[in-house]
Amino acid sequence: MIKKLEYKPLPVEGFKAAGIHSGIKAKPDMLDLALIYCENAAAGAGVFTQNITKAAPVSITEEHLSQAVPKAILINSGNANACTGTQGMADAIASAKVTAETLGIEANEVLIASTGIIGVPMPMDVVLSGIQSISSKLSEDGIGKASTAIMTTDTFEKAVSIEVELGGKKGRITGISKGSGMIHPNMATMLGFVMTDMAVDDAYLKALLKKVAAKSFNMISVDGDTSTNDMVLALSSASENAPSIESDADKAVFDEAFSTVCIELAKLIAKDGEGATKLLECCVSSASTETDAALAAKSVISSSLVKSAFFGSDANWGRIICAMGYSGSSFTPEKVDLKMVSKNGEIELMKAGAPVPFDEDHALKVLSADTIQILAELNEGDCSATAWGCDLTYEYVKINGEYRS
Amino acid sequence: MIKKLEYKPLPVEGFKAAGIHSGIKAKPDMLDLALIYCENAAAGAGVFTQNITKAAPVSITEEHLSQAVPKAILINSGNANACTGTQGMADAIASAKVTAETLGIEANEVLIASTGIIGVPMPMDVVLSGIQSISSKLSEDGIGKASTAIMTTDTFEKAVSIEVELGGKKGRITGISKGSGMIHPNMATMLGFVMTDMAVDDAYLKALLKKVAAKSFNMISVDGDTSTNDMVLALSSASENAPSIESDADKAVFDEAFSTVCIELAKLIAKDGEGATKLLECCVSSASTETDAALAAKSVISSSLVKSAFFGSDANWGRIICAMGYSGSSFTPEKVDLKMVSKNGEIELMKAGAPVPFDEDHALKVLSADTIQILAELNEGDCSATAWGCDLTYEYVKINGEYRS
Repeated sequence: MIKKLEYKPLPVEGFKAAGIHSGIKAKPDMLDLALIYCENAAAGAGVFTQNITKAAPVSITEEHLSQAVPKAILINSGNANACTGTQGMADAIASAKVTAETLGIEANEVLIASTGIIGVPMPMDVVLSGIQSISSKLSEDGIGKASTAIMTTDTFEKAVSIEVELGGKKGRITGISKGSGMIHPNMATMLGFVMTDMAVDDAYLKALLKKVAAKSFNMISVDGDTSTNDMVLALSSASENAPSIESDADKAVFDEAFSTVCIELAKLIAKDGEGATKLLECCVSSASTETDAALAAKSVISSSLVKSAFFGSDANWGRIICAMGYSGSSFTPEKVDLKMVSKNGEIELMKAGAPVPFDEDHALKVLSADTIQILAELNEGDCSATAWGCDLTYEYVKINGEYRS
Repeated sequence: MIKKLEYKPLPVEGFKAAGIHSGIKAKPDMLDLALIYCENAAAGAGVFTQNITKAAPVSITEEHLSQAVPKAILINSGNANACTGTQGMADAIASAKVTAETLGIEANEVLIASTGIIGVPMPMDVVLSGIQSISSKLSEDGIGKASTAIMTTDTFEKAVSIEVELGGKKGRITGISKGSGMIHPNMATMLGFVMTDMAVDDAYLKALLKKVAAKSFNMISVDGDTSTNDMVLALSSASENAPSIESDADKAVFDEAFSTVCIELAKLIAKDGEGATKLLECCVSSASTETDAALAAKSVISSSLVKSAFFGSDANWGRIICAMGYSGSSFTPEKVDLKMVSKNGEIELMKAGAPVPFDEDHALKVLSADTIQILAELNEGDCSATAWGCDLTYEYVKINGEYRS
């Protein structure tokens, strides 16, 4: 049974963490290095960017994950270590090696994740001295600082914690993530780290993360740019005090809790999209296949024209039908119904492919809310999908025209 | 031999045209209806949007073009007649019928193109009276007003005219187009109309337009949104005074002139992208296949992050490598060379996959120009492709947040 969901980085039994300022970021008060450590890790899973220009830490982490159950994750913000050639690869390997030595574990039990500017060599002097310093600061409630240290252009920390009760025992799943720009995941996305104290089989966790990533992180977009550094990692500490996951009913509870953590983290990233003022949720229902539903939903929340219209609270719904039309989804335009819904009410815009007259003042009120649902019924079958995005604003352009300065 | 290229809508023998204010647009001084008429048309070709939510005029025009050599093109701006259900289809049919009656030709000899707001029924009263009025205003130099009447958010008219000399005779190809937002063509794009007085075989013109559209209109993007109304039409009047196209050498000259008109029109659209301050040209060379080159080039000029960086004159080249990486193009990141070039100079950014240090002041100067080339060498093979786009600016967001108001 899922007990409660909190938007906080609550500690998970068996895990220690820390976050410090190492000097990768120039400002002295900005945390830029995080470490998550699970001495007795029982299972680990990862999903990674499909961008062929992968950052060095993505390659190293994929390799290490295929060799051993991971015990530590070293994460830095401020520098992506991407497009940095052979030096970048050597730097990622050195970071894993020094972290392993400090913790007394094997190098391939350390995973590395980086986020920040592309194409600039890692400042390895501050990184290596940072690793020495951070490993002495590990604590059970250090996950809060770790969650701050992984931020780049994020405006708020993204953390979700769920408590699960099974057979009288309590377990927890906590996830933290970062991401605000270069968000258009393909397979995995941005950085996300999910921890649980519940014992799950390693192969099961790997399969579950892959399945859940497809419906959570892979269904968000901020700007259509699939990053070189996307990565979501999940670790289990298999604490004795936590419930064990054995029956199919137990698995269903765990799966739902795990999926909820990932979906909520993904939504927080979409909500904190660079410059965003609104969270957009597009649900495409009654599609012939899940793929048709997913293609249409993701195309809508990725459209610059749709995103700009929502910034202006403009019910310019033709752009939504247009974006569904070029998405690659298979459907019959003449059968589509379309609505927009927020806490301020509902607007019906299209019925069976024809426009429905609506009141502009009411529409403005509905679209002035900070979260808006776009509901499209294709009336073809019984499959559905949901995607999340944000509006496109002046601030997005400002942030990304001046990122390096 | 190609004699000269002018950015003007010069009249073509055998064609008459007109542009008027019919009342589709509210402001009385805004032209909104255009008619192109070629009484003795010899050949006609068209390419159309791949968006499955096609506007009614796209469907009607595709059908008519398959039935007869077209003699007239009726174009309106201010209303796209898209997502307008069965009424929209009836309206497009009625427009073609009334135009045909007025000109004394068959209904399927009339092609219809529309651009403007989606999802609003056509104001057929003003359209039908506009058709009566415009057919009496046809003249040989009316193409200038026609070119004005097809504009929506365009900030300037887009026209290109080329003179060709073959065997002592002079011929001409003139193209006009419109497009500023919802520009990310797939097959055809936006509205474009190309006229020539040179006699070309109908099948030849159809094949040529398809081939040329793939390398001109289909290689531009303003905002990633493939419109419901994209359409490029080409007509020949086969004037006796114009050169005939017979030998392979003649065809090569005609093809080059035709291709130049389409590429220049496409570049004008990219340059006039909504809110744009800069034209971006991305040339990807030494790719294994043309498809690899085209995917990478188009991905770069479509990336919101790349576009925002150029607005800020920020040499944030990692975003370019990132966009090539997720494009679906097959290449080896470790082999890539990257440069940016403008009239103000050149910056080398990456050599064999590793960053090259560069002077920031010099980079700022290079990127402050209004046209910037991005040159990527993949060092894999001998294929290349070029794509055109524009920067992403505050103004784009403003235009598209307030479009309907």
